[in-house]
Amino acid sequence: MERGGSGYWSVFVPGAGAGSRYRFSLDGRERADPASHFQPLGVDGPSEVVDHASFHWDEGGWKGLRQTEMVVYEVHAGTFTPSGDLASVISRLAPLRDLGVNSLELMPIAQFPGERNWGYDGVFPFAVQNTYGGPLALKMLVNECHRHGMGVVLDVVYNHFGPEGNYIGEFGPYFTDRYRTPWGDAVNFDGRGSDHVREFFIANALHWFERYRIDALRLDAVHAVIDMSANPFLRALSDRVAEYSSQKGRLFGLIAESDLNDTRAVSKGEHGWGLDAVWSDDFHHSVHALITGERGGYYADFGEVRHLAKAVNEGFTYTGQYSSYRGRSFGSPSARVPKDRFVVSVQNHDQVGNRMLGERLSRLASFEGLKLAAGLLLLSPFVPLIFMGEEYGEDAPFLYFIDHRGDELVRAVRNGRKKEFEAFEWETEPPDPASPGTFLASRVDWEKRGSGRHKTLLGLYGTLIRLRRELPSLAIGTGRVEATALDEEKVMLLSREAGGDAAFAIFNFSRGEARIMGRLPEGKWARAIDSSGKEWDGPGSLLPASVEANDQAFDMALPPLSFALYTKEGH
Amino acid sequence: MERGGSGYWSVFVPGAGAGSRYRFSLDGRERADPASHFQPLGVDGPSEVVDHASFHWDEGGWKGLRQTEMVVYEVHAGTFTPSGDLASVISRLAPLRDLGVNSLELMPIAQFPGERNWGYDGVFPFAVQNTYGGPLALKMLVNECHRHGMGVVLDVVYNHFGPEGNYIGEFGPYFTDRYRTPWGDAVNFDGRGSDHVREFFIANALHWFERYRIDALRLDAVHAVIDMSANPFLRALSDRVAEYSSQKGRLFGLIAESDLNDTRAVSKGEHGWGLDAVWSDDFHHSVHALITGERGGYYADFGEVRHLAKAVNEGFTYTGQYSSYRGRSFGSPSARVPKDRFVVSVQNHDQVGNRMLGERLSRLASFEGLKLAAGLLLLSPFVPLIFMGEEYGEDAPFLYFIDHRGDELVRAVRNGRKKEFEAFEWETEPPDPASPGTFLASRVDWEKRGSGRHKTLLGLYGTLIRLRRELPSLAIGTGRVEATALDEEKVMLLSREAGGDAAFAIFNFSRGEARIMGRLPEGKWARAIDSSGKEWDGPGSLLPASVEANDQAFDMALPPLSFALYTKEGH
Repeated sequence: MERGGSGYWSVFVPGAGAGSRYRFSLDGRERADPASHFQPLGVDGPSEVVDHASFHWDEGGWKGLRQTEMVVYEVHAGTFTPSGDLASVISRLAPLRDLGVNSLELMPIAQFPGERNWGYDGVFPFAVQNTYGGPLALKMLVNECHRHGMGVVLDVVYNHFGPEGNYIGEFGPYFTDRYRTPWGDAVNFDGRGSDHVREFFIANALHWFERYRIDALRLDAVHAVIDMSANPFLRALSDRVAEYSSQKGRLFGLIAESDLNDTRAVSKGEHGWGLDAVWSDDFHHSVHALITGERGGYYADFGEVRHLAKAVNEGFTYTGQYSSYRGRSFGSPSARVPKDRFVVSVQNHDQVGNRMLGERLSRLASFEGLKLAAGLLLLSPFVPLIFMGEEYGEDAPFLYFIDHRGDELVRAVRNGRKKEFEAFEWETEPPDPASPGTFLASRVDWEKRGSGRHKTLLGLYGTLIRLRRELPSLAIGTGRVEATALDEEKVMLLSREAGGDAAFAIFNFSRGEARIMGRLPEGKWARAIDSSGKEWDGPGSLLPASVEANDQAFDMALPPLSFALYTKEGH
Repeated sequence: MERGGSGYWSVFVPGAGAGSRYRFSLDGRERADPASHFQPLGVDGPSEVVDHASFHWDEGGWKGLRQTEMVVYEVHAGTFTPSGDLASVISRLAPLRDLGVNSLELMPIAQFPGERNWGYDGVFPFAVQNTYGGPLALKMLVNECHRHGMGVVLDVVYNHFGPEGNYIGEFGPYFTDRYRTPWGDAVNFDGRGSDHVREFFIANALHWFERYRIDALRLDAVHAVIDMSANPFLRALSDRVAEYSSQKGRLFGLIAESDLNDTRAVSKGEHGWGLDAVWSDDFHHSVHALITGERGGYYADFGEVRHLAKAVNEGFTYTGQYSSYRGRSFGSPSARVPKDRFVVSVQNHDQVGNRMLGERLSRLASFEGLKLAAGLLLLSPFVPLIFMGEEYGEDAPFLYFIDHRGDELVRAVRNGRKKEFEAFEWETEPPDPASPGTFLASRVDWEKRGSGRHKTLLGLYGTLIRLRRELPSLAIGTGRVEATALDEEKVMLLSREAGGDAAFAIFNFSRGEARIMGRLPEGKWARAIDSSGKEWDGPGSLLPASVEANDQAFDMALPPLSFALYTKEGH
């Protein structure tokens, strides 16, 4: 190979082309290409040249994401279908579209070690996991999503590399010991040579957009992208992606997972990172703590209705207040951040999977609780994210699983896993992450959705998504959002108004009946949904089918763990 | 002692009062108070209670700093006078005021180990160095400064603690191993318990403002204040200081030393740190490289007139461009930052003292070069900082010195010092930092200023400062500033205009005569200063005493290493 500018090496190999396999020789060590597009034999095998030009895109008029309309569905390709690959996801797009989902979010599919992994141990950020079907399968899936009117969000990991098959540090200054992350040395975003490290990841983002027509990236754990520079990597990335979007005349988005509660992530101003959206864990935690009653670990910071009302009103609950879990003040004021900049969930791979036993909400809450969570998720003014199976109350766990080679590494992962649960109080050992059984137990069973309460819950999700789409007051936008906590009654009132339309919802978190009194907003209101109604397999509604503001002050009894939505009549 | 909230311990000691000495017993270890206001016997001795109420302030109508008018004079109290203490600085205030200086900047005076130190090894951030005269001496000095119409800027170190007598980590979570700095573990500004660590330093800032009436703090090395939180410490600090200023109706300022070239430091916007000013090293480096011809170490990034012109126009030279010294792109766009947010110098303790032999510019440049540097400093549109003795061309070095106990620590400092100079090419060993002779050699000799070229240079500094004050076009403000580099001729043109007044200056960096041709701005121009003139001990001016724009295009010859200032006649 010949050394070029800035330490890049290159060689022209006559006759090489699609399907050619290659490795680099680094001072005698054979290494796959850190920017490999395909590792047909996994992380230890050679890289393979991929022909990106020949795929026939037929996206059926897909025009790109509309952020304010997004309904996201998070999928782990390995456990979503029995065959555990990307191609098999295609057959499920039609039902998802019918449910109202318009964005498929894939957990990381960049090449990771072995056959089973959440994806956060990836070591070839440009390659599509061989056991998922490789590059072609991903293109086919994206193409079909677009034909179904669905965008694709891809989870990418720019803050660390997996522990196995990670040789990129031999190629350049990709790491720094100036900062430490939970995964060891931080990626070098601000030290010597960091221009090229940044370019590696920016090229990665554009790779997914350009070659796979991915619509948005979900950036894993941006709090571990440590960068003190005057032009932070995340801003440089968002600038480049914005430029690309404007070239293409179509939105390519960046969504951050962040443990910072920092509005800087989504600020488009001078010192903002300029990302399009950020996950709000506070929304999840406040819902989870109220519905399950759990107070261990980070749930210690939640549990009152006011925590949830704050999250609903402002995106974050912690906007500078003291967090007892963190032992410090946390967050920045978020009330003025546009609502579509927040992605919220009541379940996601992390919140389910990072429990020792991987219990979904369906194992922790009653059926009434699941419906209440659905109401909160889908009547919230933010971008909702549904974790695969959540919509029909899947009850299989989503456990942590890996497939590493090397006993020592496997042992380290097992021990790390145990350590992670010290903050919570568990009586058993975590399931073995390395066991195939742990992986198999985590598969969703799509058949469940056709019957019983699974079907009822699915119907409720569908109805809520439809109402969100049809009623201007429930859309994400600039309308009024006002959540009020009645902490004594364990009730939250939510009033929404936009474009002349109005709606209000009542959420009861108490385990018993709640009684609330108050005055209705002006107009005549019709009950659109009551989760306690018989039609939703509930104990039966206690609420009037319609009420008027000129009635005397109302006095309503709410069934335990329920919600109701009233919409304005005559609109 | 009794344990109170958040882990604070307290005790009431009847009879204790001003002058009482005390220590804390920490699990049997005797430790001075980390927030001690006085360490009469040094870092290893007890703390002493200080009576702050009894000092009689008589500030002669002092109203506080006016940032756009500041002319700063940086002093190291230990070497500025023969007695090396704060009280002896007082006798020099009148001559400094007469020179036009209106802000005295003290290098750190917080208690450090031993008798000789730059101050950056301080371990009691609230205490005034005992060998400098302690709390009373500082109050007297500040009081006298204010009576002389001078503000006081105090250098404070919030990014690390010195290596000797540093026990604060035993008192609380003051450090974190998640980030590394050149001085070891970083101060914990964003981890568990960091609210209290922040409060320690915020209280420190207010301590100097409230009890010592310090006007501004120079925050040492903010690039080593590593903080990923949504409410960065520096912003929290600036918010609190702004609140204090508004309570007092007087400006208390924060000035950052920063190696980030990040305009975020001085942005008052949502995600800015909100500081009042930041040092521009780029200005120094571009002047230094041009005048001395040095290209070693960080000077590799400078050396062309365009580097300087950019710094003059925009504050920073590197606003995102690739820096070969750093091996990465560096800085953020600074053109729109108000000019008074930059503090510039052509010499300062770091740039002089961090040379192995501590040579001031007077040892590296000719007399003509020193005058040229003075012209650049004082005709720049920024807040100028003069390093003690610079104004008369002091030729004593300013060396690095310490007075640590413990052979091992002294050896470590010596070795660190040697290592620091590997980037430069030196033929000898650095002077021993621990030797008293190194300290003594660094003393300035104030007597020199009365005669010869020293006196001439002093006169030039005084004249330039007076012109800055008198001519609206030379003030720091919103007027037009336009520096143009003629790199081939090694000349910089500087045009300034404000409030109907105008001036232009020509700086010649070539070692020979330069010849420039061009067209003058409209009007009649009078030569106000020509550094090559006989009155400044120069070889003699080649420039016309006055020129008019309606003359034909000018064709000027400029003597080597010189500058001239023309001002608009009839103003």
